[in-house]
Amino acid sequence: MIKSPGLNRMLLPASSAAARGISVGVSRRLIHSSSRLARAADLEARSIVYEANGDPTKVLRAHKWALPEPKSGQVVLRVGLASINPADINVLQGVYPAKPAKRQLPGLAGDAFIGGNEGFGIVEHVVDTGGDLQEGDWVVFGKPQMGTWTSRMVCAQDDVIKINRRSSSLTEVMASTLQVNPATALRMLSDFQRLQPGDIMVQNAANSAVGQAVVQIAARQMGVETINLVRDRPKLDDMAAHLAALAQGGAPAHLFTYEGLDDRDSGVKEKIKDIIGKRKIKLGLNAVCGKDGSNMAKLMGPDSTLVTYGAMSKQPLSVPAGLVIFLNMSVQGFMMNKWYASKQSTPEGSQERRQLMDTLTKWYEDGSLVPPESHIVHIAPSDDVETVGRKAREAVGSSMAGYGGKKFFFKF
Amino acid sequence: MIKSPGLNRMLLPASSAAARGISVGVSRRLIHSSSRLARAADLEARSIVYEANGDPTKVLRAHKWALPEPKSGQVVLRVGLASINPADINVLQGVYPAKPAKRQLPGLAGDAFIGGNEGFGIVEHVVDTGGDLQEGDWVVFGKPQMGTWTSRMVCAQDDVIKINRRSSSLTEVMASTLQVNPATALRMLSDFQRLQPGDIMVQNAANSAVGQAVVQIAARQMGVETINLVRDRPKLDDMAAHLAALAQGGAPAHLFTYEGLDDRDSGVKEKIKDIIGKRKIKLGLNAVCGKDGSNMAKLMGPDSTLVTYGAMSKQPLSVPAGLVIFLNMSVQGFMMNKWYASKQSTPEGSQERRQLMDTLTKWYEDGSLVPPESHIVHIAPSDDVETVGRKAREAVGSSMAGYGGKKFFFKF
Repeated sequence: MIKSPGLNRMLLPASSAAARGISVGVSRRLIHSSSRLARAADLEARSIVYEANGDPTKVLRAHKWALPEPKSGQVVLRVGLASINPADINVLQGVYPAKPAKRQLPGLAGDAFIGGNEGFGIVEHVVDTGGDLQEGDWVVFGKPQMGTWTSRMVCAQDDVIKINRRSSSLTEVMASTLQVNPATALRMLSDFQRLQPGDIMVQNAANSAVGQAVVQIAARQMGVETINLVRDRPKLDDMAAHLAALAQGGAPAHLFTYEGLDDRDSGVKEKIKDIIGKRKIKLGLNAVCGKDGSNMAKLMGPDSTLVTYGAMSKQPLSVPAGLVIFLNMSVQGFMMNKWYASKQSTPEGSQERRQLMDTLTKWYEDGSLVPPESHIVHIAPSDDVETVGRKAREAVGSSMAGYGGKKFFFKF
Repeated sequence: MIKSPGLNRMLLPASSAAARGISVGVSRRLIHSSSRLARAADLEARSIVYEANGDPTKVLRAHKWALPEPKSGQVVLRVGLASINPADINVLQGVYPAKPAKRQLPGLAGDAFIGGNEGFGIVEHVVDTGGDLQEGDWVVFGKPQMGTWTSRMVCAQDDVIKINRRSSSLTEVMASTLQVNPATALRMLSDFQRLQPGDIMVQNAANSAVGQAVVQIAARQMGVETINLVRDRPKLDDMAAHLAALAQGGAPAHLFTYEGLDDRDSGVKEKIKDIIGKRKIKLGLNAVCGKDGSNMAKLMGPDSTLVTYGAMSKQPLSVPAGLVIFLNMSVQGFMMNKWYASKQSTPEGSQERRQLMDTLTKWYEDGSLVPPESHIVHIAPSDDVETVGRKAREAVGSSMAGYGGKKFFFKF
């Protein structure tokens, strides 16, 4: 049985609603008449695929195919926006340990991967199993590597997490950036140490998307001061001002460089110690490893946790042994996808995933969490598969080049 | 009020009971008559002291002094045997982070440290506060750095842990080696991962006192196989046979070298992988750090714990970042003294300390745990302080030189 959406529900995405309203309206009318989708077009998908790992600017191409008929417990989603994240590039290159499953796609000789892990979807069709999803709902993806670089997908209801929009201020970019970076920031700030207002923590790679979310959530939601470390670079003052702005209204955010911390004569270590004062740093977030990660760890206090979620230095994770043995520092890893996987398939887990999304949605809506600057790559309905493939390769290439510091998205 | 020991209690230490029986008898008779010690000799102590950190073969000397009159809740102990452990040397040198407190000792101009952390004591006198200690009881030291290199001490009842001897097979060396090494081994095998019979774990520095206790407890008490790593050395086969003997009657103990593991062409990694088979190593015990610690970590499986309790390589603790991020390996520190400190001053904590000692005592008594080979340095009653000082400096020097691979003890 197909659920009928309530009249007063917000059915359409916040932006360009009119253009999309037409197709949604058509498909819903048809769905009402049957549990089978009446028009083949309602199951047509264009996806960014690759058949083997390799250079992301070369292996990607587009494929147009017919989704399988959804079964009981499944939903059909139109993808509203799909993120291009650095980890997606690593997955494409085959250097990421969590590998997506290859699938057999009609019209392709061999099995293929569909790219993408993050984004948001709009529910087009629900084959009911008692869940609370309805057509028009916005959802994010609760399972790793679901292949979000696609115009449409069929998946299990339990694989998506409904976004509880309370206002129209939630933009598509916000919805498409709930799942990974601010979620990672919030979990790492919450799950390892019980931070209190007035506490102070330290992180490196502070200018990354996760790092900026950490500054905002720590400062504004938790009242926690941040020591932020980045590589030395031109216009460091601009970055300091940017981080300070992200912390505005909350606890201060301080910026220092790895090079300064490593140089005894720079006075950086002394400045940081002055800021820390009598407090002890209980939490460090490490996306760098190597010497710079070790220098950061040395700022931390007894019984602290060094949470490692990246290794940008491509060096091993290293800390002075005494910190672990004598100060009882604990070194833990964090990976958002593992968190989602651990919350799969239980009512409590589903509830926790939903709560996480609700919290972040609220912060986006009230303006206390700011989404990254975005660059949207539009895939037009009239684009043929060659054009879509070229656009995809170019977009991923620009994303890899860090073009303009913006986050890239596909919009089908 | 002074407790009177029951007639059927074993009052005397297992060896050379006659010689010591006399003085114990004398002091007990006197104690019965008063809560104050009647003879100054009953509070006389000879202690190995130092006034400043430095070369252990130079800074140590002996001091003869009168202990303070014990107060309510305190006990007077005669030290039965006092261990000389590697960590004691580090404390003497001032390179150990847990520093003992300096004390004002009558007859010394400046404050001084008393050496020693481990040993066992025989209760000579109890100023009752409802505890269950009685004269003649054997106890070990439940607080770090209590200064065990002394003929006698006064301390709080809560600072010692009663040994529950069930047979006379518990030797003085066994009693004096309960507190640190086998306790460390048992806690590390128990507190981080739930190992099951048939599981397999890995450790380095496997020939250390802790390492040998790990082999015995894992093999015989837990049915857990051990991969043991040591530096390459002459007569490696002898060591392999020794470890195999320690594991006899339990799960197998395998021996490999750091050099073999680090050499791709040695086939060691393949041999270890064959032994592991389909199992996953959940626990690694690391006393080495640096490259060899990292190589060991690479043998470990998902959701495992690398427990670090030493850094013999004098290198930082280093692990491939991917193990922590993607395999969710947790890196934790362990320090037995911190464990004891965490169990201080609560009934539950006291109970846990007692249980730990009971368990190890039972294993020593039934022969499933073998004490280290010992070399006992006897301090005769007739030795003057110069002689005692010289013996102490020589003993510590021999201990540092690893003389004969034996563990050294002071016997006053």
